[in-house]
Amino acid sequence: MTKLWGGRFQKSAEQWVDEFGASIEFDQKLVMEDIDGSIAHVQMLGDCNILSTDDVDIILGGLVQLKQLAVEHKLEFSIANEDIHLNLEKMLIDLIGPVGGKLHTGRSRNDQIATDMHLYLKNRVEEIIELIQVFQKTIVNQAEDHIETLAPGYTHLQRAQPISFAHHLMAYFWMLERDKERFLDSMKRIDISPLGSGALAGTTFPIDRKLSADYLGFSNVYANSMDAVSDRDFIVEFLSNSSLLMTHLSRFAEEIILWSSSEFNFIELDDSFSTGSSIMPQKKNPDMAELIRGKTGRVFGNLMGLLTTLKGLPLAYNKDMQEDKEGMFDTVETIVGSLKIFEGMIRTMTVHTKRLHDTVHKDFSNATELADYLAAKGLPFREAHEVTGKLVFLCIQRGYFLLDLPLNDLQEANSLIEEDIYEVLSPLAAVRRRNSLGGTGFNQVEIQIEEAKKRLI
Amino acid sequence: MTKLWGGRFQKSAEQWVDEFGASIEFDQKLVMEDIDGSIAHVQMLGDCNILSTDDVDIILGGLVQLKQLAVEHKLEFSIANEDIHLNLEKMLIDLIGPVGGKLHTGRSRNDQIATDMHLYLKNRVEEIIELIQVFQKTIVNQAEDHIETLAPGYTHLQRAQPISFAHHLMAYFWMLERDKERFLDSMKRIDISPLGSGALAGTTFPIDRKLSADYLGFSNVYANSMDAVSDRDFIVEFLSNSSLLMTHLSRFAEEIILWSSSEFNFIELDDSFSTGSSIMPQKKNPDMAELIRGKTGRVFGNLMGLLTTLKGLPLAYNKDMQEDKEGMFDTVETIVGSLKIFEGMIRTMTVHTKRLHDTVHKDFSNATELADYLAAKGLPFREAHEVTGKLVFLCIQRGYFLLDLPLNDLQEANSLIEEDIYEVLSPLAAVRRRNSLGGTGFNQVEIQIEEAKKRLI
Amino acid sequence: MTKLWGGRFQKSAEQWVDEFGASIEFDQKLVMEDIDGSIAHVQMLGDCNILSTDDVDIILGGLVQLKQLAVEHKLEFSIANEDIHLNLEKMLIDLIGPVGGKLHTGRSRNDQIATDMHLYLKNRVEEIIELIQVFQKTIVNQAEDHIETLAPGYTHLQRAQPISFAHHLMAYFWMLERDKERFLDSMKRIDISPLGSGALAGTTFPIDRKLSADYLGFSNVYANSMDAVSDRDFIVEFLSNSSLLMTHLSRFAEEIILWSSSEFNFIELDDSFSTGSSIMPQKKNPDMAELIRGKTGRVFGNLMGLLTTLKGLPLAYNKDMQEDKEGMFDTVETIVGSLKIFEGMIRTMTVHTKRLHDTVHKDFSNATELADYLAAKGLPFREAHEVTGKLVFLCIQRGYFLLDLPLNDLQEANSLIEEDIYEVLSPLAAVRRRNSLGGTGFNQVEIQIEEAKKRLI
Amino acid sequence: MTKLWGGRFQKSAEQWVDEFGASIEFDQKLVMEDIDGSIAHVQMLGDCNILSTDDVDIILGGLVQLKQLAVEHKLEFSIANEDIHLNLEKMLIDLIGPVGGKLHTGRSRNDQIATDMHLYLKNRVEEIIELIQVFQKTIVNQAEDHIETLAPGYTHLQRAQPISFAHHLMAYFWMLERDKERFLDSMKRIDISPLGSGALAGTTFPIDRKLSADYLGFSNVYANSMDAVSDRDFIVEFLSNSSLLMTHLSRFAEEIILWSSSEFNFIELDDSFSTGSSIMPQKKNPDMAELIRGKTGRVFGNLMGLLTTLKGLPLAYNKDMQEDKEGMFDTVETIVGSLKIFEGMIRTMTVHTKRLHDTVHKDFSNATELADYLAAKGLPFREAHEVTGKLVFLCIQRGYFLLDLPLNDLQEANSLIEEDIYEVLSPLAAVRRRNSLGGTGFNQVEIQIEEAKKRLI
Repeated sequence: MTKLWGGRFQKSAEQWVDEFGASIEFDQKLVMEDIDGSIAHVQMLGDCNILSTDDVDIILGGLVQLKQLAVEHKLEFSIANEDIHLNLEKMLIDLIGPVGGKLHTGRSRNDQIATDMHLYLKNRVEEIIELIQVFQKTIVNQAEDHIETLAPGYTHLQRAQPISFAHHLMAYFWMLERDKERFLDSMKRIDISPLGSGALAGTTFPIDRKLSADYLGFSNVYANSMDAVSDRDFIVEFLSNSSLLMTHLSRFAEEIILWSSSEFNFIELDDSFSTGSSIMPQKKNPDMAELIRGKTGRVFGNLMGLLTTLKGLPLAYNKDMQEDKEGMFDTVETIVGSLKIFEGMIRTMTVHTKRLHDTVHKDFSNATELADYLAAKGLPFREAHEVTGKLVFLCIQRGYFLLDLPLNDLQEANSLIEEDIYEVLSPLAAVRRRNSLGGTGFNQVEIQIEEAKKRLI
Repeated sequence: MTKLWGGRFQKSAEQWVDEFGASIEFDQKLVMEDIDGSIAHVQMLGDCNILSTDDVDIILGGLVQLKQLAVEHKLEFSIANEDIHLNLEKMLIDLIGPVGGKLHTGRSRNDQIATDMHLYLKNRVEEIIELIQVFQKTIVNQAEDHIETLAPGYTHLQRAQPISFAHHLMAYFWMLERDKERFLDSMKRIDISPLGSGALAGTTFPIDRKLSADYLGFSNVYANSMDAVSDRDFIVEFLSNSSLLMTHLSRFAEEIILWSSSEFNFIELDDSFSTGSSIMPQKKNPDMAELIRGKTGRVFGNLMGLLTTLKGLPLAYNKDMQEDKEGMFDTVETIVGSLKIFEGMIRTMTVHTKRLHDTVHKDFSNATELADYLAAKGLPFREAHEVTGKLVFLCIQRGYFLLDLPLNDLQEANSLIEEDIYEVLSPLAAVRRRNSLGGTGFNQVEIQIEEAKKRLI
Repeated sequence: MTKLWGGRFQKSAEQWVDEFGASIEFDQKLVMEDIDGSIAHVQMLGDCNILSTDDVDIILGGLVQLKQLAVEHKLEFSIANEDIHLNLEKMLIDLIGPVGGKLHTGRSRNDQIATDMHLYLKNRVEEIIELIQVFQKTIVNQAEDHIETLAPGYTHLQRAQPISFAHHLMAYFWMLERDKERFLDSMKRIDISPLGSGALAGTTFPIDRKLSADYLGFSNVYANSMDAVSDRDFIVEFLSNSSLLMTHLSRFAEEIILWSSSEFNFIELDDSFSTGSSIMPQKKNPDMAELIRGKTGRVFGNLMGLLTTLKGLPLAYNKDMQEDKEGMFDTVETIVGSLKIFEGMIRTMTVHTKRLHDTVHKDFSNATELADYLAAKGLPFREAHEVTGKLVFLCIQRGYFLLDLPLNDLQEANSLIEEDIYEVLSPLAAVRRRNSLGGTGFNQVEIQIEEAKKRLI
Repeated sequence: MTKLWGGRFQKSAEQWVDEFGASIEFDQKLVMEDIDGSIAHVQMLGDCNILSTDDVDIILGGLVQLKQLAVEHKLEFSIANEDIHLNLEKMLIDLIGPVGGKLHTGRSRNDQIATDMHLYLKNRVEEIIELIQVFQKTIVNQAEDHIETLAPGYTHLQRAQPISFAHHLMAYFWMLERDKERFLDSMKRIDISPLGSGALAGTTFPIDRKLSADYLGFSNVYANSMDAVSDRDFIVEFLSNSSLLMTHLSRFAEEIILWSSSEFNFIELDDSFSTGSSIMPQKKNPDMAELIRGKTGRVFGNLMGLLTTLKGLPLAYNKDMQEDKEGMFDTVETIVGSLKIFEGMIRTMTVHTKRLHDTVHKDFSNATELADYLAAKGLPFREAHEVTGKLVFLCIQRGYFLLDLPLNDLQEANSLIEEDIYEVLSPLAAVRRRNSLGGTGFNQVEIQIEEAKKRLI
């Protein structure tokens, strides 16, 4: 089969070689973007009198037909035509005759593929931002139900201080808020048109790049044609932002898995977000959380893959850059799916408030209260810490918790301790009193939730 | 030796275990930030009447002394005191007595280290943005000298179309411009104070977090204390942005290395940015460019390392997070050094303009001109491409270039070709005519450089 | 639809949740391995009298039918049945009735999937080793044709010393030899059966794991059932070995790209391994080499992805581990394709021996000869190096090469130099005299090639 | 300051440029290997009559002096001399005069650094293999104490089936066994000498590479000089093997952290392997396990860094390759430290056997027993699974466990169930009966431990 670029060649590649080099198997995902790019391009060519109105009308007609066929999934792509651009160009010429060949005036596949990917990612990132918001709302809803649910707060997976369960949930709200911010920031570098940059150097035709950018809804155009066709920063940035998003989801997933264990037993996932075992009939596994945690690796891998591919490439386009697509598509699919699943999982989970309440009454997470109590009475914090540490050790030896110690034992340890210590040591008081800005005190958590709602539009 | 947190413990770790866990060997880089954070904290404690004016004065006096000693490199850090925080606290207590223990009122090492790193990175990123600008200016200067220097433009490392050498250089300007933008965007997430978030839950003391943030020059405070002490996004984001910057430098380095080879011979690096061989006396190696290309791996590795470390960590602080520092320090050092070296290398290089000029006259990079010429005369571009390809093949067989072909050979290939083709095929004309926005046409390059200068403040 | 594990559940997942968790879309690649594993398992169950001969015969009959349908691509997989195991089990029960449910006696999906993957990778790695050998043979063939082809040897992409072109090619032979060795070593850890390890703890049925391993052709069985179902080392090791293989191919690809450039012009790739441009009619691009270089990123990414996924997983099976498959399949496909393409590219390339010969006569790559000459005459090497460096600089100033310098200039630099220096400085002599073991001397290269042939079976 | 390679240069680099390019700050770690390499080289030069006995004696004398100074840490390295080779050569010449310059006869820094790194890694890998064995022995010791300690076995972090705690610990033995195997396999590619390969092409001097390899204790020599100086596979392979080792340690660390939590409470770490909190006096944190889990990222990063650096490098030596060292040194230090710490942590931990025993009596991890019981009585496993799942759900509703169900409830679910079911459901019986090869049955675990001991020499 003759290639569209075959004039200079005496011999064609064998089919298996073609297959290795062809991208049509995956870049057909860009079919809509590619047609839209062509429509904008040909309209501009007409507006600039580079093509005649007649030619433009015929070509536009063909492109609209192709778009309809694409919607109906009736296009049949061929590996012999390498990629989405040559496939569509061939189909167009088959449809409307040689005039279809005029579509490629003043552009190259190099600016064309870059345009497709900017269009694609612009749409996907908008969708992702929206999904993040939906998830944030669900977190806020769960948080509002659990402002006064006491729970153990951990550091080093050791119980540290009692907290409001809402406060814990809201920490993920803010991580997602930063993810949203980063995706929004990246739009500046996605929403920009490379179309008309040609192979690398621009074109000799008197095109109007701002016009085609307008047709496509881009806010800006690249200032340098070599940069325009060589730039894959916007994809790396997307993969970096996605890696951070997945990092957050992996952390939340880890907690969901811990909380669902028999040992923690803080929550129960809905049956619809759990699965069973082929062999152990009693099992109810937090599969979705595990899978999302596992998929973190895939996204990191996609990021590392593209960075590696780009490292050390001279200007301008190199075929290596064809490897930019699959990782991007896979990442879009992964984070869209993960956000949807996670939202459903959190929306439908049952929180075991009684179990949470009980835990904070049977541990030493109120020890800081005692130290702070002594510090507030003027003992240097370091000494207060020492006194408390020794009392904790005494309790462990006796099988007590701090609230179980009689006052004289406490006073023997330090005479500043008085009767009011028992109120101070209650987990409820401990949480309520942590009322510094951003702290877990109930008032602060309410303020935080109000602040969070303002971020959701 | 007794630990500051040792009250609850019956046994100390052996020294080799302490050494494994200690961070003082590398976190001493944060000595200034840690002291500044303490100064702000204690001032705030005074303003909020949590500590008496007397206590505050004594503690401030001690901190100022420590700062002076730090400036003079007279502080001696000890592994037994684990980290920068406990080292400084111990020194403070040694200096001013037990009152020093009051400094830790209402804070924890968890918010303290986060504060240090936000301060550190805020300063470094400002410095990096400045270095990027210096490098951009150098690129603009070189570009201005070479607007009319013809050079071959490449795709697939094959000569594609002739370009202005300035246009090629300016592509890197715009990559760096995006790097600058990204670092600036990241400031929103760096310039924010976690101080006062305590271990994870805030504090029971009536502190004013906005006040300590003000003292430190932070624009904002974290809204959730658990998030504040667990967040390392800003470091990952820094490493991601640095990875892209290094990707750009690796591409530029690859070109410098190619251009310095005997085969290309487009430039000569200054002796002061080259090295020789211990065995081959004739060698002059572009070592610096190679080293920067190589260092790309190190920065990608640091990014991948931190992402891996954070994956799947439950809230809030975990000791794993101590691993956030070395990769950050190393990346700062790497990109600061690479930017400085690259700037000097480009500033001092000699461009072989004659050699560049000659190359574009002895290749087929003007073939697109012929195709465009035919397309402009109404031949569908695909057919124009085919005709040209065949003429190129004819030339290769005869040992000709396109300009060497007699008119009748050209007309035999296609009768639309006329005498004016020879002017069209001249590389100079080819470049000049690529005057579309962002193209390599001389006018466009001038406009581009003016636009670029506006971005430099 | 009822799940095979649904007894304990009150509610099913919605379809979109099922889809997110299902692996059937990609693990259907393991259909043959899964059926083979079942055949071996049921035979063993019969041999051990755990199932009756009748049951075994019926089940075997069903499995053989399924295998035939698989060969004919007539199996229809369903997302509702999650994965390859439950899909096949469902089909079996549909085919032969409830007795099909006895197949799962004494095994679990956890040991089943591990078995499938060991089988799969064992076969693929054997295939890959064979492909490496085919490529090595091609390299040896090309090398044999070019033992006396002089070429410039590079360090820092600067011409360093003249070499035999065969020597350069053979360097890749040895890299591939190490790749082969590593894949062979890894077989020890691939060729081992987890079958019969159950969900994690073994089984109460009196199975014979060595027997089922024998049926499947495994050399060994896992010693610990928890390890058997949790181990994915063998896949990571495969990805690591593949990453090194791709590193080697990326280096070779870089050279092919350089050598194909107008500037180097050392080789020409066959048309069948090159492509053209949609816009520039003269272009002949080394696309395949670029694409392979680019695909290096994908394989590194797959490695990094799986390492990340496995990091920090507690024993035994976790759903995260489902993420082990796609990267493995993709890597197999990538390296199989890359090896085939590269072999064809090298087999069909044309070496420009005259151009290579000319280059080494117009550079300073014989400078080491002069230094060695002086060192052999007793001048300390450091001084010989210094003398030669100055002579090189003298030549550059005059536009000479070393062979062009008159004897008196040479002797002025150092009086040890005599008439015989001109013979020493000839590139041919320079190569011939580098006859140390493993050196580029023609004799050595011949010996090396003979040695290489012994490694190929 | 004059460079040893400065003859051809007119201008020196400024100090800050030198500093960027110099490697002496980190490659001084190779001082012993570099001197040993020189000693072997000069002895060989003497044996081959390339240097006179007198020269050899003088140079050897100087090298022995340098070695003694190195042992005493009295060598002062200078950035102006770039790297360890030029530093030592300069010191040698300062010590014994210009004859020191003869040492570099027939070698280059390119084969010299490769030799140093092979020597270094050979020694370190031997040390690491030994440390793995020490850790394995500790695991075996703990396992022997806990063969009959019942514990819950997990999949998906949900309790799955009861196991012997020894069985769980032993799973890590086998992971480490594979690590050991891989490090041993890699020795084939580490224990090989590049010395005498020169800059890239071998040397004109009649050296004997096998002789110098013998002096250094290498088993083999490289067959191709270009490969010898360009090969960094052995370091990548080391980093890959280290990444898998860290993956295993990260999994074990995760379990140690889980088991140390209040919720699991399966073990208590010794005080000497735990740390406290600066603010919360009750805390006892499993810092060492967390830190090792965190350090996994660092090692993955080092692997990714070197792979990236090597990607796409043409032959032979390029300065990029200087980046091979720091990641290697860092990884050696990390895994040596991690192995030592982990060994101590496991050796000194207290296992809460009573708590473990209690847990398996209060869960549904015996459900598989019931399903297997029914399957053994002829019910197809799928139906047995269904029956059991429904009984589990019944129990959950009633707040029962399976052993609490009266016989008639059981028989109502399926009439095959008889009185002997209660014995079958006991966790002890459940473990004992899992006596398939490699299973958790006590006999099997004993056999496994015996098998393990044979692997330790």
